[in-house]
Amino acid sequence: MSLEEALQRLRHHYQSMPPVAAMQIDVADYDGQRLRLHAPLAQHVNDKGCAFGGSLASMMTLASWGLVSLRLEQAGLDADVYVADSQIRYLAPLFADIDVDAELAADADWDGFLSTLRERGRARTGLVARVRLPEGGVATDFTARYVAIARS
Amino acid sequence: MSLEEALQRLRHHYQSMPPVAAMQIDVADYDGQRLRLHAPLAQHVNDKGCAFGGSLASMMTLASWGLVSLRLEQAGLDADVYVADSQIRYLAPLFADIDVDAELAADADWDGFLSTLRERGRARTGLVARVRLPEGGVATDFTARYVAIARS
Repeated sequence: MSLEEALQRLRHHYQSMPPVAAMQIDVADYDGQRLRLHAPLAQHVNDKGCAFGGSLASMMTLASWGLVSLRLEQAGLDADVYVADSQIRYLAPLFADIDVDAELAADADWDGFLSTLRERGRARTGLVARVRLPEGGVATDFTARYVAIARS
Repeated sequence: MSLEEALQRLRHHYQSMPPVAAMQIDVADYDGQRLRLHAPLAQHVNDKGCAFGGSLASMMTLASWGLVSLRLEQAGLDADVYVADSQIRYLAPLFADIDVDAELAADADWDGFLSTLRERGRARTGLVARVRLPEGGVATDFTARYVAIARS
């Protein structure tokens, strides 16, 4: 599958989930290592005029899920991807549109993850995601583990 | 403020946040210690037919936030409530409507939290939340810290 086909498939995946479609998420950028999602603040604003923590949690969860899904499709692997656990730190409020970047955790590697999935039908990997502040710095960070289970 | 007024205010709060209004959340139960939120699975279903992890994260974040907000209003305190950090474990997929319970962490107490907020204008407390499985057991659990900052 080509990269453009994989990105179109990811957009379709997101749109097919009602809670995600309501979030007005755009797949903004993907360079093979890092996936960036974007969403308008207006759709995610809380009672304090900044981005709602639950929306940020949801978008970081989705971006990491999307990155794993893209890598699996590019590798020609058919698997369900689940989040297993996550830790989030809310460092600063965000009063702007939401940009989330997801990438592999520093101690993980795609080759190991993909070969384990091929051999055992199941593999686990660490992901990290961040919401950036427009002035620089980080609004929230996220570390998580995801599990892929081959579809039979 | 009476309990019924506080609950109405919480419902209004939730509805006034666009991302939350889209989640079709119902304030299902509150006994003074535990707040329960409910939402239909159809609004939160993922590509695998079960509840989307981001929605569960969002609802546990909201339920805990709502519980702190209710306790502050019942105590007559005017403060903004922020989530500071959270840890989530996804233990089992949920193929049913979502019921989330939030309560104070075992090592925290409301009296201490409220008196610190009165004295210092700022206080922090631990919360726990769970999504229940209809057959018994837990689909996801959540531990988090929330900060309240008095409005001047």
